[in-house]
Amino acid sequence: MNFEEALSLVTGKIADIRYPKQPARLYEPVAYLLAMKGKKIRPALTLLTCHLFKEDVHEAIPVALAWEIFHNFTLMHDDLMDNADIRRGQPSVHKKWNDNTAILSGDAMLILAYKQLARSSGAYLKKLLDLFSTTAAEICEGQECDMQFEERWDVREEEYMDMIRLKTSVLLGACMKSGAIVGDADSKDQDLLYDFGIHLGIAFQIQDDVLDVYGDASAFGKTIGGDIVCNKKTYLLIKALNEAEDKEKRELLRWMKVSDLPEKKIQAVTAIYDRLLVKDKARGQMEEYYWKAIRSLEEVNVSDDKKLVLQALAKELIHRQS
Amino acid sequence: MNFEEALSLVTGKIADIRYPKQPARLYEPVAYLLAMKGKKIRPALTLLTCHLFKEDVHEAIPVALAWEIFHNFTLMHDDLMDNADIRRGQPSVHKKWNDNTAILSGDAMLILAYKQLARSSGAYLKKLLDLFSTTAAEICEGQECDMQFEERWDVREEEYMDMIRLKTSVLLGACMKSGAIVGDADSKDQDLLYDFGIHLGIAFQIQDDVLDVYGDASAFGKTIGGDIVCNKKTYLLIKALNEAEDKEKRELLRWMKVSDLPEKKIQAVTAIYDRLLVKDKARGQMEEYYWKAIRSLEEVNVSDDKKLVLQALAKELIHRQS
Repeated sequence: MNFEEALSLVTGKIADIRYPKQPARLYEPVAYLLAMKGKKIRPALTLLTCHLFKEDVHEAIPVALAWEIFHNFTLMHDDLMDNADIRRGQPSVHKKWNDNTAILSGDAMLILAYKQLARSSGAYLKKLLDLFSTTAAEICEGQECDMQFEERWDVREEEYMDMIRLKTSVLLGACMKSGAIVGDADSKDQDLLYDFGIHLGIAFQIQDDVLDVYGDASAFGKTIGGDIVCNKKTYLLIKALNEAEDKEKRELLRWMKVSDLPEKKIQAVTAIYDRLLVKDKARGQMEEYYWKAIRSLEEVNVSDDKKLVLQALAKELIHRQS
Repeated sequence: MNFEEALSLVTGKIADIRYPKQPARLYEPVAYLLAMKGKKIRPALTLLTCHLFKEDVHEAIPVALAWEIFHNFTLMHDDLMDNADIRRGQPSVHKKWNDNTAILSGDAMLILAYKQLARSSGAYLKKLLDLFSTTAAEICEGQECDMQFEERWDVREEEYMDMIRLKTSVLLGACMKSGAIVGDADSKDQDLLYDFGIHLGIAFQIQDDVLDVYGDASAFGKTIGGDIVCNKKTYLLIKALNEAEDKEKRELLRWMKVSDLPEKKIQAVTAIYDRLLVKDKARGQMEEYYWKAIRSLEEVNVSDDKKLVLQALAKELIHRQS
């Protein structure tokens, strides 16, 4: 099973999900968000991980769908909390409908994720349920830290790394671990694949931060510098704030207060990043986590040829331009 | 086991729940809401129902706690959606903290409810999980209907009954059914106890609507007429709108537009209710559902003496003044 096959299986199964017809305003936003073009990388990772151990991955489908529905639930609530009005080029749910709809449909979506999960075979249910709830709670913790960072200018690099681990990486780790569980992998391999996901997730998020500033606008599909304009605490900004000398730090903090002049702000902050070499430092971190991921995968007790698809995927995620 | 014993067991177990310390702003609101004095009738019903079939109810504790945490999650999100700033005499979570905290802590609380549920014995887990998710989704549907009713003046009595069934009654039904499941009751008894909860829940909600207008202010603990002031679509209002002749209906709708003069509004609308005898009609409905509940309980295949506690509880709920 290659990545495209996993993706196409997942995409078909998501399209097959039937929601209750009534009340329409509760379930339409759920279908709206899930029908958007997204990477769908998380459920694909579950299937690919299961496939390391088992030819037939159909038992991993409920948990794979549960992760994708859960991930989209977090997008619905996070967009509302973060005032993000655009999601994948379309209006986000609280914008297309209203705040209350985003709250309540999000709640319904989290419940629907658990409903999918409960379709898993009884042999795995308890383990999957514990992994799911633990991961879901950690992701809420990560979002809470991220929101608190918005009010702080003294976030340390370790705090940032811990936040992205919770907000982004544990989901990738858990997607992979759940595939390993359904694949009847032993607990050592389950943990190694969880670690692969964690490391890859951290590298992925740092890459995201770098692309926002240094990406190719046409390939990235977003405006370059969006994070700078809204003072988002990214790896680059935190690294810059921590490494800048007094004068440069004051200049950076002065730009943070500028809310008109977005073009000039992006230019000036990028120039500071360039002077402080934070892009190279970010790439260094990213490489380090990429190699940690690769080493975890190497230790998994299956033949090397089976690992090629996950190795290739990791490489692609790290070298992506969008 | 009598009601007080069930309540005291539940109260102790809720007080024993330990939340993660960090991030404090995520978990403090959860602990804040659960520590408020509430009726805690739902988890008590789970234990009492289990006790119909089994002397030792300890296996029902995880699911009983899951219901109470879930119920409080709905309060956290509903208070935000309904702009209700006071909960049990104290500021509600979105007021004490802010909207984003109420959204995210609520999400964490729903996940914590599932975590409690997952502590149930494996023999019951799948059944309890399905019942829990189905019920939780129905309650979201009920809240959605309730919010839609706020924008409508043509709600029919059947629609109202269906809304309160979803928003209030299925939770009581499911609390009881889960106790029966853990009590190893056969499926007929499980369904009878579910029906008991449904009927009791409907009677309970109509009683709530009546008490808001006709209750004893000191015993009720809320301001009398609060529902009238904010035009809440209660059984009384819907019945009055449906039964009033043209002239009286116009008068009622005119008062609905009044937002100053709360005292006068309460007086005038209550007078219309009195003329239309909607209080008696509400009490009639309530009695009907009360007796439906009692008859469902009678059919349950356990000895009559065991049913006394639930019979007494039903009677008390219906005759309560607060």
